[in-house]
Formats: sequence, structure tokens, C-alpha cells
Amino acid sequence: MAAPTAPAHRVDPDSGLDDVFRLAQQLRVDAVRCSTAAGSGHPTSSMSAADLMAVLMARHLRYDWQDPGNPGNDHLVFSKGHASPLLYAMFRAAGVIDERELLKDYRQAGSRLQGHPTPVLPWVDVATGSLGQGLGYAVGIALALRKLERRPGRVWVLCGDSELAEGSVWEALDKAAHYELDNLVVLADVNRLGQCGPTEFGWDTDVYARRVEAFGCRALVVDGHNLAAVDDALTTAADGRQPTVVIARTVKGKGVSEIEDADGWHGKALPEDLAERAVEELGGVGQLTVRGPQPETEAPAPRRRRPVELPRFEVGKEVATRAAYGKALVALGAARPDVVVLDAEVGNSTHTQDFEEAYPDRFFQQWIAEQQMLATAVGLAVRGFRPHATTFAAFLTRAHDFIRMAAVSQVSLALCGTHCGVEIGADGPSQMGLEDLAMMRSIHGSTVLYPADATATAALTATMAELDGISYLRTTRGSYPVLYEPGESFPVGGSKVLRGGGAEDRVTLVGAGVTVHECLRAADRLARRGVPARVIDAYSVKPVDARTLARAARETGAVVVVEDHHPEGGLGEAVLAALAAVGSVPAFGHLAVRNLPGSGSTAEQLAAAGISADAIVPLAEGLAP
Amino acid sequence: MAAPTAPAHRVDPDSGLDDVFRLAQQLRVDAVRCSTAAGSGHPTSSMSAADLMAVLMARHLRYDWQDPGNPGNDHLVFSKGHASPLLYAMFRAAGVIDERELLKDYRQAGSRLQGHPTPVLPWVDVATGSLGQGLGYAVGIALALRKLERRPGRVWVLCGDSELAEGSVWEALDKAAHYELDNLVVLADVNRLGQCGPTEFGWDTDVYARRVEAFGCRALVVDGHNLAAVDDALTTAADGRQPTVVIARTVKGKGVSEIEDADGWHGKALPEDLAERAVEELGGVGQLTVRGPQPETEAPAPRRRRPVELPRFEVGKEVATRAAYGKALVALGAARPDVVVLDAEVGNSTHTQDFEEAYPDRFFQQWIAEQQMLATAVGLAVRGFRPHATTFAAFLTRAHDFIRMAAVSQVSLALCGTHCGVEIGADGPSQMGLEDLAMMRSIHGSTVLYPADATATAALTATMAELDGISYLRTTRGSYPVLYEPGESFPVGGSKVLRGGGAEDRVTLVGAGVTVHECLRAADRLARRGVPARVIDAYSVKPVDARTLARAARETGAVVVVEDHHPEGGLGEAVLAALAAVGSVPAFGHLAVRNLPGSGSTAEQLAAAGISADAIVPLAEGLAP
Repeated sequence: MAAPTAPAHRVDPDSGLDDVFRLAQQLRVDAVRCSTAAGSGHPTSSMSAADLMAVLMARHLRYDWQDPGNPGNDHLVFSKGHASPLLYAMFRAAGVIDERELLKDYRQAGSRLQGHPTPVLPWVDVATGSLGQGLGYAVGIALALRKLERRPGRVWVLCGDSELAEGSVWEALDKAAHYELDNLVVLADVNRLGQCGPTEFGWDTDVYARRVEAFGCRALVVDGHNLAAVDDALTTAADGRQPTVVIARTVKGKGVSEIEDADGWHGKALPEDLAERAVEELGGVGQLTVRGPQPETEAPAPRRRRPVELPRFEVGKEVATRAAYGKALVALGAARPDVVVLDAEVGNSTHTQDFEEAYPDRFFQQWIAEQQMLATAVGLAVRGFRPHATTFAAFLTRAHDFIRMAAVSQVSLALCGTHCGVEIGADGPSQMGLEDLAMMRSIHGSTVLYPADATATAALTATMAELDGISYLRTTRGSYPVLYEPGESFPVGGSKVLRGGGAEDRVTLVGAGVTVHECLRAADRLARRGVPARVIDAYSVKPVDARTLARAARETGAVVVVEDHHPEGGLGEAVLAALAAVGSVPAFGHLAVRNLPGSGSTAEQLAAAGISADAIVPLAEGLAP
Repeated sequence: MAAPTAPAHRVDPDSGLDDVFRLAQQLRVDAVRCSTAAGSGHPTSSMSAADLMAVLMARHLRYDWQDPGNPGNDHLVFSKGHASPLLYAMFRAAGVIDERELLKDYRQAGSRLQGHPTPVLPWVDVATGSLGQGLGYAVGIALALRKLERRPGRVWVLCGDSELAEGSVWEALDKAAHYELDNLVVLADVNRLGQCGPTEFGWDTDVYARRVEAFGCRALVVDGHNLAAVDDALTTAADGRQPTVVIARTVKGKGVSEIEDADGWHGKALPEDLAERAVEELGGVGQLTVRGPQPETEAPAPRRRRPVELPRFEVGKEVATRAAYGKALVALGAARPDVVVLDAEVGNSTHTQDFEEAYPDRFFQQWIAEQQMLATAVGLAVRGFRPHATTFAAFLTRAHDFIRMAAVSQVSLALCGTHCGVEIGADGPSQMGLEDLAMMRSIHGSTVLYPADATATAALTATMAELDGISYLRTTRGSYPVLYEPGESFPVGGSKVLRGGGAEDRVTLVGAGVTVHECLRAADRLARRGVPARVIDAYSVKPVDARTLARAARETGAVVVVEDHHPEGGLGEAVLAALAAVGSVPAFGHLAVRNLPGSGSTAEQLAAAGISADAIVPLAEGLAP
């Protein structure tokens, strides 16, 4: 592979780019210094992109560094989060962190200058470090600015070349083109070296350009170390015509001859002696402070909220919780202009179509691209919206890594997985969410809700728009009787005792969603057999209602948990963990989906999995003291 | 959007395609009949692709329907698995299922003709139904045929147009081009209507063609109802020059005028009266049986196995389990020619690079495309290889949906997630696998292993190549003392008692991986404080060693589980579930990662999460009776 032909750091003396050149060198020096001080980090991946960031920061990024919350600010997303030394060097150049913090704190315990950027820093919108995600978030931010807020802010994203192998990148560019996000500029730092050696395409920038154009965006190929060329490219990129990817041919380790374009230097701090020589070659420690272009500050129009008027459902009527979810979204939409809804081309099944019809401007079709659906949601949340992103529970697993990272980003958003469990019937296992409770419970700070009826679903849907962090609502395909009167309240962490509750109860049946109805049927049969059962609707799976469960365990001496989910990580283990934490695990039975389901009716599926009333009754009878 | 211009079903009388036309109509009739009989299914999505499949089956697919295990057979993957009525109609036309089974069993409980195809059918290699996956599997199968077996078989994939929105599709095509899989032919059924209405691009086949070509594959655009044109396209596609995507413009519901190209008919069986009219319009019930081209049968060279000579590690020496994994893979590779290894461009961190260096022909770089890494593994497993696919534990979440579906496909493959937990230190939360145990435990039929030392890692790595289903090995970044002598055996479902074991033990400490070492340190301190502790290395997380744990619970009366994972769905809940199942939950303590970590050293991270010996000692002391 030939080395890049452009001479390094050519600065036309008439270009006025001398300061930008000095800034770029300072960024490199600081990236080297902080990583060497920490003993780890990615200086060479920072150095390849330093010229791009220097031009951006000095001449294009409209950002008030003293006021990161300014709604007129542009956004900058470091999708290649491992280039954090470069980002933090920019913060120093902006005058918002000082040299001491940069050199002492980077990658240290308790520091905000973590190995990969997170929003504990006020100038960082989203956590990155899982590659291929930053661009997707940026699409969400750009969408909010352009389609919802109608503000002039731009979104700039720095990507590495290795991460362009992630399919999620192409989902993101597709959406950027579809929604005509002319306020989005991606800077792809094509330094040709990944973690393990040469990337798939090296410096073949044409491949990237062809792909970008095929996905509907504009591609500008540039020598990423020619400051004037980069400046021109960014000017063009931000002309408001089309989402644009600036494909910059760069050199890893640029500026330090000993490591330039050399394999084996990914993710390694320079040893102290090499770092010293590097700083010298780069022109020594810099003290530039850069203000850069400033945003036009315009106060956003206040978003007026009205009280939510939830849909009302008649007790006993059969309503699918997914249908109630759709109606509740419409009610939320009427009350709250910040509520937005996303779907992955299954809106007529998930009932988000109801919202799309009522509020088409706040509904964003993400097609069958669940990763981007999550990324868009995160980006919308960054701009203060309350996204509700929905698909089949099974297909949310597609976006697991994005959900995980959304928790690290500490954004607030609501997910809904429909068609959970074997309950769906004939479509078979590919469409059954049987792992989603485990996935969503294990997300840091998450809330997991699984209502058994339409009233609870509507109430919890409204609640989710108020919760911090990632919340998840699990809904069911089929229609079941409404259990609760309109107006009933469903606090997070609560539960409902639907049968029994007194001293005579000899066994507790705990269900959620469809299994609540099976538990009720089982309780009726048990009653006829002289075994009074307490039935608990554990609609709040995380946090689970430890107090009510512990009391039931103590009072009845036997608990049976029934769930339409694999036995691992779901309601059963949530209940067990809660009981164990208070030291009162009674005789315990756990019915869950242990088979590999096939097709069949709902009743047949519940029976085959052993989670129907037929299975509950003998187990409960056997455990009842 | 204009309707397609080509007249429907034009068959040149000289083309010899009359039989193919009749076959196509028969496939449509049977798709209509079986879905109407079942009351659900996707007849219209089947009818758009019927001409493609008729041409393929009659003239191109080399397949011995009587011998689906014939290694010379081509492969056919229905990525649009919802078109199962079409696939099952093909089985009837091949004479391998009869009319009675098709009409009576489709989508019924206990039937092999499920709503979406799974390998309970001998002619189905992989389960589909989660869209965007089938093409990826096909890439894996084609890779095995071309690069490992060097056989002439081809792989044909039927995709829908909606699923081309999944990024995973582009990861797949990228790999097809990279590995020059000229034996791969994709048939994209562009019927312009998705589940919710028009797709993003409708009949704009040029968009798809540009994307396919940008990703390095050949695109052939064709009228998918012109049998001669389709025949020509498939002939060209299979010329062995390049992976090819035949982009077929088709009409949803083709052949039945009442529903052709009509919105609102996705996933709906025709009502009986409409079905009757449809069958009539399509020419009535057909009775064709098609043999099609036959494979050249050539017995595969037997793969000779030698006993595995595991690497040996000296007790007390500090070795990272990820490093032991790399060495074990090399040992496995020497013994077993069926073992193949995949990585997502982190092989120098995961140590799969050791295998790459030793057996470059059996190592397949998947770049940073975890979904395709899983899909390739599934495809290789279909051809009888034993794939070991590896990346950071955190990034395996990216492939969750593929792992879930691999279990439904009932293939056997081994996964390894490295850099688990907060143990990794300074890189921060984006790189920490803290949800992987919950994810992997919840996979149907999975085995989850988490060794504490190099000896156990090597033994378990070898064991994984013998296990049925999906197995998962969790490894650690840092180096820790070897605990076990070479030759020690580590049965799945077992555990090791590393301290105590007698009647005097007053508390049990259960760890896995890095926390075993913390438990040992804690036990030493507890011993000095007069509290004898039993320490259990629960290297087998699923199945967990219920017997040893229950005995310890009974004998010590107190159990503390310590894990480097979020509290939900991991080792703690696995232990609890096992104890509850045998009715002996003692006083129980659970230390897990409940904070949102930042950067810091390993020791600082373990301390901040409260999973170090410092946290274990007081909890254990408090619980000990």
C-alpha cells in the first residue's frame, strides 16, 4: 500500500491557517502527554484526526464552550471514542479543562476524563466506545434539530475507518438520507490501521465514497492533513444541501516520525522517552486557547404540557396490552409535545401506528433497523425529547449493545417490546421474545414493566415518560380481560394482590402479563380444591415489589412464579433475588419456558411450555404447606 | 409509483418454460391453500417470489431432495422466513411432503411445518424469521464450501426487500465480497410492500443495485415474473465469477388479481371464498413433482482427529484466561481439523491471533461486524465445522439476536467473550461486559462457563468443541495465579471447592473468574478472624453445580455470591435458582456491580463496585451463623 502522497502539514502562508496548524500540533502534544501520563490510551488514533478537529474547532464548530447546555450549540460526537485524548486535548484548547486535570486525571479512578468519553463531561452528549454507534446517535440529534426543533444547529461526527464495517453505520446513513439531514457532517478518519493491523480497505477511500453515495449521502474525499483542503471540505459539507461524509485520508500517529503509519501502536501510550521526542518534534507544549465560531442563541419555544388523559377500558372487556399501549401513546402525545415515537416497520402490529396517524410529525419510521431505532432514540433524548421506541420484544435483542450504551449515556428513553413469549402462538420461536426480561433487567438503572391488562398498560406507558434512565414495557399479542378500573394507580416498584391477601392463603402465585390470567384461573381451581391462593400481579419486574412478595412468602410459606420467558434472568429470578435479599425464601416453584417452542395456538403454547393453569395447580398444591 | 411494465407471466412457447410456469402457479396455489387452512401466514409474500423459486428449483438448484444430508447439495436459505408457505409448497413439489401434511399441519402445534422454517425440517439448514439474518448465514455456508471444503456447491438465498434495511445485510455482502464467495447467489424479492405499507425504496431497484455494487458484489436487475429473464439471471449469477444479488422486481400477491400489489394483505391468509377464487385464477390445484438438477456426489475427505494436547500452566504463575484461551485454541486446532476461529478485529486482545498465526486457513477475520461474525459461525456450523467466535464480552451484545436465533437453528458453536466486567480497569464502561452472563444464560439450551484460571480455561475451551448447542466462555483481561494442576478435569455442571469443605465451615463464598481470587483472599482474612469459609469456584455458570452448592448451603448456613457482572441474570441469580429448586436457600449475600463504573485500575474498580475481598469479608462475617 502506497503512503499518502501529499506532503505533511503543508500550510499555505496566505491561508491564515498557521494558527490552526499550531492548534493541531498542540492537540497532538496533549494527546501524547495525557496518555503517556496515564500509561494507556490511544494517542496514535488521536494524532491522525488532530488536523480534522483543529480545523473543525477553530473554523466550523459553532459552540459556546462556557455554556454546553446552550440549545444553539452545534454537537460533536466522537464515534471513535477511543480517541478521547484528542477530545480532551480539545477541551483544554477550549479552556474548559486545565493542563493539570488533563495530565493528572486522564483514565484515573473517580475522574471525569474516562478512557472513553461519557456524559459525565458537560461537553459530551453520548457515551461512545462501542464502535459504530456515534454516527447513529448523531442522526438522532440531527433529526431533532431539523425536523422537530427546526433550529440551525449542525451535528459533527468523528468516525474511525474500522468502525465503518459495522452494519449500524449504514443503517444510520440510510436514515440520514431518508430524513434529508443536511445538518449532519461525518468526518471519517481513514488512517488505514485498525487494532490488529491494516483495515479491510486501507487507504482505498473510493470504496467508502461509493458506499456513502449509494446510501444517499454526499462523499467528499480529502487529504486529512491538508488544512486548507479540510477547511474547504468542511465548508462544503456544512452548506446545508445534503448529509455529508468527509472521507479523510490520514496517517495514524501523524506528526511523530518514529510511529507514523506504523503497525503495532494501536491503543498504546508512548513510553516516556518517545513521548518526549514526540513533543519536541511536534513543536513543544502549546498554550493556545481557541474560541471558535459561536452559536446564535435563541431561546427555544417552551413546550407546554397538559395533563395526560389516559384511555379508559371497561373491566372484563378483552383488550390486548399492545393495543392499549398504542392508545396510551396517543394520549401522551396529546398532553406532551416532547413525546416522540419510533418503530421498525411493524407499527400496525405494535400499535404505534395509532400515534403515527395522530401525530405524524412526531413519528419516525426507522424501517427494519432496530439498532438505528435505538440510536435515533438516544439522539432525540439528547435534545430533550421523550422517545418511545417499539418493536417486537424478540427484535429488541438486535439493539442490545445500543441499549447497554444508552444506559452509560444516562439518557432517558422508553422501549416497548410487543409479542412477548410463547403467547404469540403460530408464528413460532423466531418471533417470540423469551430473553427480553433478562436483557432489560441487566441494563444499568433500568425499569422493567410487564402489565397484565389494558388499564395497567396505559398507566405505565404514561409513567415511563416521566422516568429517568431506560425503561421497558413488555406487551402481549392477544386480548385478555381488563382487570383494573380506570384511574387505578400503578407505581413503579409496586404490585397488585388480585386474589386472597389474608391469613388463610396457603400459597402465593406470582405472574406478570399473560401469566397473571393463568394464575387467576389456577387460583379459582385451587379454591375449589380447598387451597386458598394469593395471586400477585408483579407488573413491576424491576424494581420488583420486595415488600409485598416477602410478606406473601412469610404468610403463605410457598411461592410459585409463572412467566412466559426463559427461566434465566426473568421474573422468577427477580422474585427470588428480592426474597433472598430480605432473607425469606419459602418453598419455591418456578414455571417458565424451558422447551424450544414450535407453532400452535396460544393455549397449546402455554400448555407445551408448562406455564398454564394446568401446570400451576398441581405445583401449587404440592408446595402449599 | 408506476406498476411494473412487463406483462405478467409471459412465457415464450419456445423457451421450454411452460413447466416452470405451471410449477410457479402450483407453488402459489399451495401457498394460498396452506395459509388459508391454517388461518394465518404470508401468502402474498410467497406469491411474489414464486416465479423466482420455480425457476431456481426446476433449473438451477442442485439438490437431492431424497438425501438432504448429501454434502454435494446446494443450499437454499429462506431469509424471508415468513414466506414459509412458498418453501413448504416447494417441499411438496419436490415430493418430500405430501398434500395432507401441507394442508393439515401448517402452523399447527407439534408440526414441523412451523410459521417460520426451522431445522426440524431436514431440508432447512437454519431457522429464519428474524429478518436480515439469512444472508449472513448463507455467507458462512458459502465460506465453508469455498474456502474449507473446496466443493462446488452453491448457496442460494431468498431475501425480502424490507429486510435490506438491516445493517447486518451489508455486513454480510461485505464479507461475501471480501472472501470472494462466487458460489453465493442472493435473490432479492423486491415486491415494494412491507408489513406496514410501501418500503423505503419501493420498486427503485437501482438503489439496491448501487448498494450491492458498492459493497463489492454483482447486481443483476430483473423482472421477477419474466421466467426467461429470471432463468438467464440465475445462469449468470451462478457463473462462478462473483457473489451476486439478483434484484427481482416483483408484485406482492402476484397471480391473484384481487390482491396483486395491494396494501393491507401482508401476513394475512386469504378468506376461504377469496382463496377459492385465487386457486381458480391460478389454474387450479397442481400435481407436478419436480426433480431438478442433481448434485455431483463426492464423499468428503474424512477429517482425522488427534487427541487434544492442552497447554500446561504452572500453578501460581500469573496467566490471563484470555491468553490461555488463545493457546487452547491452537491446541484444539492441531487436534481437530474441524475447528475454525472467527474474530471481530480484536484478535490481538482476545488472543485468537495465536490461532490465526498457527492456522491461517481456518481463521476468518470478520472485521468489526459482530452480527456477521455470529452469522458466519452459524453457517460454518451448518457445514459441520466447530466455530469459536470471539470478541470482547461487551460487544457480543451486538449479536444478541443472532445468538438467540442460532439456538433456534440448533447449531453447535462456541463463543468467547473477553474483557469481562469492571476488572478491565481504565478503559471504562463501554468496554466492560456486565450483561453477558444474563444474555448467554437466557439463550435456549446454552452452556455458560467462566473459568478462574488458565488450566480451567484450556480444559473448558476443549470441552466446548464437544458440546451441543451454544456454549459461552467468559474470560478476563488481567493475569491471575494459576490455581489448578495440569490435567485437572472441569466437567460442565461442576465446580471446585478451593478452601474448606468440612463441617467447620461457617460460610460459603461462591465466585467465578476474577472473583474466585477475591474470595480466596477474603477466606484467608476470614480464617484469621476465626471464621472458616468454604470457597467454591463456580466455573460452570449454566448448568450450575446445584449439588455442591446445596450441600455447602446446608453445611454452612450462609452463602455469599460475588460476581463481576450486574446483579441481574448472572451468577448470583443462577446460584439462587439452583438453591431454591432444591429448597435450601440459606442466609444469602450477593455482591455484584451495582454502580455505573468509570475508569481506574482493576483494584480500584473492584473496590468501587464492592466486589473485592474488602467487601466480602464483612458481609460474610455478618451472615455466618
